[in-house]
Amino acid sequence: MKRGSLFIISAPSGAGKTSLVAKLVASQPEIEVSVSHTTRPMRPGEENGVHYHFVSKAEFEAEINNSNFLEFAEVFGNYYGTSQKVVEQKLAQGIDVILEIDWQGAEQVRRLVPEAISIFIVPPSIDELRSRLTNRGQDADDVIARRLSEAQTEMSHYLEFDYLVVNDDFETALSQLQAIFTANRLTIDKQQSAQQVLMADLLA
Amino acid sequence: MKRGSLFIISAPSGAGKTSLVAKLVASQPEIEVSVSHTTRPMRPGEENGVHYHFVSKAEFEAEINNSNFLEFAEVFGNYYGTSQKVVEQKLAQGIDVILEIDWQGAEQVRRLVPEAISIFIVPPSIDELRSRLTNRGQDADDVIARRLSEAQTEMSHYLEFDYLVVNDDFETALSQLQAIFTANRLTIDKQQSAQQVLMADLLA
Repeated sequence: MKRGSLFIISAPSGAGKTSLVAKLVASQPEIEVSVSHTTRPMRPGEENGVHYHFVSKAEFEAEINNSNFLEFAEVFGNYYGTSQKVVEQKLAQGIDVILEIDWQGAEQVRRLVPEAISIFIVPPSIDELRSRLTNRGQDADDVIARRLSEAQTEMSHYLEFDYLVVNDDFETALSQLQAIFTANRLTIDKQQSAQQVLMADLLA
Repeated sequence: MKRGSLFIISAPSGAGKTSLVAKLVASQPEIEVSVSHTTRPMRPGEENGVHYHFVSKAEFEAEINNSNFLEFAEVFGNYYGTSQKVVEQKLAQGIDVILEIDWQGAEQVRRLVPEAISIFIVPPSIDELRSRLTNRGQDADDVIARRLSEAQTEMSHYLEFDYLVVNDDFETALSQLQAIFTANRLTIDKQQSAQQVLMADLLA
């Protein structure tokens, strides 16, 4: 039985990661984004198990103590994390699972799953990034400066990733992401199980 | 300066390798097939430096003695080989170089260039392979049996390769080959040089 692969996709805000990943997942049924666990309250329009697995703080901490998270973080008093069990179920079904996490989450995941494939997405220039981070046009300069600084901190970790994709033209970046997933499915490790019947036939 | 990568593409006769590689190379200017050296006589319509580098037996053997070949073989009294210098010039220009060689050549190249990326192409079934090997319809059964047996010997080495592509539908197989080349150009090693200016801009 063919197993899926675990992918990490990280990017600074403004790189266009969310749109790219949404389009990538829509284009191929064998790729899914992992649904995280969180302790933050559900918002109107959100659905448990779809947007997040919503759990209590006590439940989340129990899972931490049982080492059930591939990665987790506390942000503004709320926990967010990726359950190993949720991911494992998908991988066992042959589905490639994407974690949309930051460089710190990526670091945690790599320690537990060294074969995870990590992709970093960057915008095509600092000017374009600044413009994407300010185009709501309503923020104070210091807020924008802080966002840019956070984006640069995130980007300073790009060399820790396996792949780098520049999101200049959206369709090009999308097809590059697709190529990374396609190539991974063609590796001999994956193909050895996927083509087992064919190879037995050819070598009989 | 971005360096190209060395690719090995192997397949049994009847897998459709030659057509796939021709289409692949035509689709992307940054991919070329390496021109081999040979001692066999030039045939009508062939051009020196295009189909082969035609050299004398003495010249070829001098190159062997100087360890100038990434791989070579003697077939029916003629030498065929891949010059390291020819390959290196292309790689230095940022071109991905394809060697179309058999599993024995692949083994020689891997020893000298461990980072070479090797791809094995197979037909979609043994029946299809048999039909592709016989469809000239003019060969004796024992000739066909020998071809099939040679194809199976070649295929028995598929696990030594990095990637496996099944040539069932030509366009699918072509796009899978393209994905392998595209993904390789997006690896962090390649991108670190290719995107040096961009990353300096983004992190400034």
